[in-house]
Amino acid sequence: MSNNKELSLSERELLENEVKKLGDEIRLLKAEKADPNIVKERIARMLEKKALLGDTGKTKFTLKTPKGTRDFNPQAMVIREKVLNLVTNVFKVHGGEAIDTPVFELKEILMGKYGDEGGKLVFDLADQGGELCSLRYDLTVPFARYLAQNKITNIKKYQIAKVYRRDQPYMTRGRYREFYQCDFDIAGQYDSMIPESECIKIMDDVLGKLDIGTYEIRINHRLFLEGIFEICGAPSSEFKNVCSSIDKLDKQPWEEVKEELVKVKFIKEDVVDKLEKYVRLREQNPSLSRSDLLEWFEKDEVASKNVKIKTAIDEMKLMFEYCECFGAGSCAAFEPSLARGLDYYTGVIYEAIILETPFSIKSEDCDEEEKNARIGSVAAGGRYDTLVGMFLQLGSNDKKNKTNVPCVGVSFGIERLFTLMEMKHKSLGTPMRTNEIEVFVATAQKGLLKERMNICKELWGSDIKAEMVYKKNPKLLTQLQYCEEKAIPYAIIIGQREIEEGVVKVRNVVNREENDVKLNDLSSKLKELLKC
Amino acid sequence: MSNNKELSLSERELLENEVKKLGDEIRLLKAEKADPNIVKERIARMLEKKALLGDTGKTKFTLKTPKGTRDFNPQAMVIREKVLNLVTNVFKVHGGEAIDTPVFELKEILMGKYGDEGGKLVFDLADQGGELCSLRYDLTVPFARYLAQNKITNIKKYQIAKVYRRDQPYMTRGRYREFYQCDFDIAGQYDSMIPESECIKIMDDVLGKLDIGTYEIRINHRLFLEGIFEICGAPSSEFKNVCSSIDKLDKQPWEEVKEELVKVKFIKEDVVDKLEKYVRLREQNPSLSRSDLLEWFEKDEVASKNVKIKTAIDEMKLMFEYCECFGAGSCAAFEPSLARGLDYYTGVIYEAIILETPFSIKSEDCDEEEKNARIGSVAAGGRYDTLVGMFLQLGSNDKKNKTNVPCVGVSFGIERLFTLMEMKHKSLGTPMRTNEIEVFVATAQKGLLKERMNICKELWGSDIKAEMVYKKNPKLLTQLQYCEEKAIPYAIIIGQREIEEGVVKVRNVVNREENDVKLNDLSSKLKELLKC
Repeated sequence: MSNNKELSLSERELLENEVKKLGDEIRLLKAEKADPNIVKERIARMLEKKALLGDTGKTKFTLKTPKGTRDFNPQAMVIREKVLNLVTNVFKVHGGEAIDTPVFELKEILMGKYGDEGGKLVFDLADQGGELCSLRYDLTVPFARYLAQNKITNIKKYQIAKVYRRDQPYMTRGRYREFYQCDFDIAGQYDSMIPESECIKIMDDVLGKLDIGTYEIRINHRLFLEGIFEICGAPSSEFKNVCSSIDKLDKQPWEEVKEELVKVKFIKEDVVDKLEKYVRLREQNPSLSRSDLLEWFEKDEVASKNVKIKTAIDEMKLMFEYCECFGAGSCAAFEPSLARGLDYYTGVIYEAIILETPFSIKSEDCDEEEKNARIGSVAAGGRYDTLVGMFLQLGSNDKKNKTNVPCVGVSFGIERLFTLMEMKHKSLGTPMRTNEIEVFVATAQKGLLKERMNICKELWGSDIKAEMVYKKNPKLLTQLQYCEEKAIPYAIIIGQREIEEGVVKVRNVVNREENDVKLNDLSSKLKELLKC
Repeated sequence: MSNNKELSLSERELLENEVKKLGDEIRLLKAEKADPNIVKERIARMLEKKALLGDTGKTKFTLKTPKGTRDFNPQAMVIREKVLNLVTNVFKVHGGEAIDTPVFELKEILMGKYGDEGGKLVFDLADQGGELCSLRYDLTVPFARYLAQNKITNIKKYQIAKVYRRDQPYMTRGRYREFYQCDFDIAGQYDSMIPESECIKIMDDVLGKLDIGTYEIRINHRLFLEGIFEICGAPSSEFKNVCSSIDKLDKQPWEEVKEELVKVKFIKEDVVDKLEKYVRLREQNPSLSRSDLLEWFEKDEVASKNVKIKTAIDEMKLMFEYCECFGAGSCAAFEPSLARGLDYYTGVIYEAIILETPFSIKSEDCDEEEKNARIGSVAAGGRYDTLVGMFLQLGSNDKKNKTNVPCVGVSFGIERLFTLMEMKHKSLGTPMRTNEIEVFVATAQKGLLKERMNICKELWGSDIKAEMVYKKNPKLLTQLQYCEEKAIPYAIIIGQREIEEGVVKVRNVVNREENDVKLNDLSSKLKELLKC
């Protein structure tokens, strides 16, 4: 059997068991001279299961998650919940409405949306009959599909969900095959640069509130890059191809980028040299301010005459003004070499980078992932005015129906933020609680199980987070140690005396102070204590 | 090309465009007598893209989500957030810690865990090289894998996540291919029936707080069913097979179940008749209380002598006692015909059913899904003591290592609860807000964009949820209408006068009362108003 190699040990064991049971039954049925039809059916079933077993050869089996994915234990989940709540709250402060879409989409929806490189990284579902589907690669394309399908022209939405990329996982650099994205998008026909500025403000709000270090929001414009291409005489068919090399300038020296452009991508050397002058302007003149840089292009004899460059510079100038009004001006920079995500972006593009983290945790307490998390992009986005239109056209089967829904958005690549928050917690040295239990219900002597259950019922009924040990006769010391380990603030201790007197002992786990409280007042008294 | 049929229109369009651009460039390069290597490279690239295009024939394209899946719009998301928050809070009140696992697992992890029928419904990922993976079918098997892999013997955890089943979707009955499960599980070696009772309590807490109707928690025991099998002389090899028919008794009349057992599953008629007497005991004697039913089996001459039945009855009696202590006794019933999920359950099994919903919404306002949501299971679970051990054995490659981690848990099938909550909302007729905006910043005259931006900055800085329209010159009426439509409680209105005097007008959107507030006091004044 060809599927023999796919049998897991557990399945093999189950099958062997079933074959054996069926064998026993067939013998019994024959002995009882049962209906031959029944015997036949049982034999057929046994043979089927035997065939599945194949001959022999146990498969090697490793207990792990698939490559590029991971579990999150309760410690990690506490940090994740904190970060996601903070991001969600910023999204709500800015008026976002939540939406959700399926984890997989029809394959055709995703095809052709992520360029040559991205396209190869899409996870497909197996063809098990029916539609061909793929796991979502980002949240932007599904959102555009959602708008087109529901004929929505106007929304301010957020979505927080996992996306999937069949990338070579560099787990130590925070690159996974399954990771969260937190997206905020504004769809609708609005006045120039106002929604863009709110997206910058949102990045600033999230990074400011997380308080994980200094950051910069780098901004560029597709038209600017296209204009530079034109004035340098670079072939427009190579636009995306060249941009993907230029975008590496924040990680690679110019010499390497140039070599790739000339030798791998066959761009003429004189064109590459012309490009260099423009895209490295900020890098080579670190003293120039944002407005100096913009002005430079307005004054440059060649650049200033290019319509695309002029439009881009004007738009970015307006956007920076608005960012100032929103109080998000100081972290925003114009970066002529920023050139990412140009598959569907049509206007302004941006990216937030953590520059420096303040945590002084020792190098040896820091794993590779944490070391690398200090650098790199934590959010990115831009304007994409044609993506929804592409779906609208397809949906309507009418090429002339050129309705468009202009969109702009920002996406937080939250994995690196999680890692940075974990480091921050480590550096603060505060103990982390993985549950929120407020009161532990203990017993000072053997038994009293039902009495403890009764008290738990009372507390749960008042929404007090409470637990007890699932043992009939637990030891008091073990119970109190557990409270201290888990940093549970209060313990209730009951014994025969307390029950007879209708009271319980309430113990402050930190200072070990104990007080009798009447059973009737227990919930209200605890609520008071927990408020402090 | 074989992949021709898979090209979406959008990809086709992009490809055609790229072929055209490359063609233009090649002509230009040739005219310029460029390096033949470059020309060759471009031609090769063009041909590659042309090949992808195939000959012709545009594919039919529908804008939709994959079969059995759906989007959630902001209205639906508000309800979902409410339900999930409520469930999460109950889990936290009971001391649950959160974990998360990847959406797909190694195929071998899932194989053989869901019986013949379930196994066919697992979604596989395509073999794109590397490991073979499948989408998770539930959260229980991944949790068991997590415990075994991390050698955890002791945890009280919850997980809220989507699972995937390639079922025939009956969307009108709330059956989807992608749906949420909310699981609470207790792993560890504890005294008999205490964790089980807390699971029942958790179901009772969630359903009580949701307040969507009367419900019953039906309880049975695997050993009880196995014992019944033994005393009826049913073949043990047919156990799961027969149980899956018996479990249909809540939806089908006995005659149909019997026919399936005799004619399709070839169980002898006299055996089926014996089974009937036991499994229909509650149905045929509706006046018998839970303890009457348990007593019946303790007194029955045949049943009482079976060790398995005796153990099961004793355990269930103890559990009902504990449920009473937890205050969850009144909704718990013993149901001898409950026989689901027997692939990995080893002890007590249970299922929560909504019996009656109080919403009096008219039939015509109610879609099929809502009508059907009134009936059926909303939560289920049980004890599974051997699943983790199965993985531990596999992981260690050592058959003798028979360590076990006993587990018991409950899983809420939350889709039906969402539908019921949507109905409840509809029946209450309260308007639903899809964002949480507290203040809208409006202008009474043209312009004043930057002033509005400044005020938004102030409000956002104080965590007040605020928005403005993304227009330079909006009309006041439009802005105020928007506030009323969206039920935003307050509007701030600024005009030239207000700016000169350093004040803004704060308008209560409901009663249209307006008051001047000093700009400096704005945030604190609004916080006060919003508290009321």
